[in-house]
Amino acid sequence: MARPIDFYFDFASPYGYLAATQIERIARAHGRSVVWRPILIGVAMKLTGGRPLVEVPLRADYTRRDVPRFARLLGVPLTMPAGFPEISLAGSRAVYWVADRDAGLASRLARALYDAHWGEGRSIKAPETVAELAAPLGIDAAALMAAVQTPEIKERLKTETAAALERGVFGSPFIFVDDEPFWGADRLDQVAMWLAGAGSATP
Amino acid sequence: MARPIDFYFDFASPYGYLAATQIERIARAHGRSVVWRPILIGVAMKLTGGRPLVEVPLRADYTRRDVPRFARLLGVPLTMPAGFPEISLAGSRAVYWVADRDAGLASRLARALYDAHWGEGRSIKAPETVAELAAPLGIDAAALMAAVQTPEIKERLKTETAAALERGVFGSPFIFVDDEPFWGADRLDQVAMWLAGAGSATP
Repeated sequence: MARPIDFYFDFASPYGYLAATQIERIARAHGRSVVWRPILIGVAMKLTGGRPLVEVPLRADYTRRDVPRFARLLGVPLTMPAGFPEISLAGSRAVYWVADRDAGLASRLARALYDAHWGEGRSIKAPETVAELAAPLGIDAAALMAAVQTPEIKERLKTETAAALERGVFGSPFIFVDDEPFWGADRLDQVAMWLAGAGSATP
Repeated sequence: MARPIDFYFDFASPYGYLAATQIERIARAHGRSVVWRPILIGVAMKLTGGRPLVEVPLRADYTRRDVPRFARLLGVPLTMPAGFPEISLAGSRAVYWVADRDAGLASRLARALYDAHWGEGRSIKAPETVAELAAPLGIDAAALMAAVQTPEIKERLKTETAAALERGVFGSPFIFVDDEPFWGADRLDQVAMWLAGAGSATP
């Protein structure tokens, strides 16, 4: 049984959203599953000296053009959220809380949160919003809102982020196929090629 | 007659090299020509706070893995030059000097320099090396070596770099199709899609 693909992302990352719309399809085409791993990319940015793209001269303008164009070329909806960049602690924690019970359900929750935030431009910061978006998936709203406030789940998001950094993750999205790292929505084609057996240094 | 594609690059940029191996083919498939525009990307990096990728924690390791893998997936040779990153003032100036006489020849010179530097890992810093690589293309070595030392051509590279920055260029490669900007070798697929008529916000 082939190992699942590790899909690291931050809900604040538009390129993470773009990749999120594609990764399950790509994985499925090659008989793989996907583990969705929300992280706090700001922690990695402190280490690498990165700044949110929208704060960098020239890059900011480019990013505001590139992201919608990328979405159009993929054929997926894109609405820039007003509060960008917005940190969704509740959403990130909720994904891990659900994942411990049902990994497939966690991936559907992550996708629902991303679609609301970047597809529709909604804020997903409030735990109430996360619970509201989780409810149609059969996730108990009250249980979710309680869970994302526990010390255990708060710590979990921190340790997952630290473990990602330890593994070399410094951006969103960041994808591992087995132990091969791919950074960026613009590496999805290469992820697919790799899954098909191409690109290895030792064929 | 459709406008030429503007292809901005720095000889020190491995992603510029990877794009250089593809851009003429992509342009030709859509009835376009390419204007090759070497620039000094370090000037842009000062503005955007960027650093050479190999100096940034985590990103350095990733880049050293990503570049050779990208080359393998494209099926082009790649040899990391020992002196990376190496600024080739002579090579960049020579391209403009030749371009004023023959744009097609300038593109072949740029490609020869890139192939030597990133395909074979050779240094292309010395004017003598640039002249040696230019000679098989029918470019007079002595004339080239004299030309790249003139105040006019030195100033030309500076004004071309400044003009690129003014246009929004902050990385290498950077491609304009008409006035639509694309940053990175990983946008070549989107360049091709755009040339085919896809991706516009106002179809």
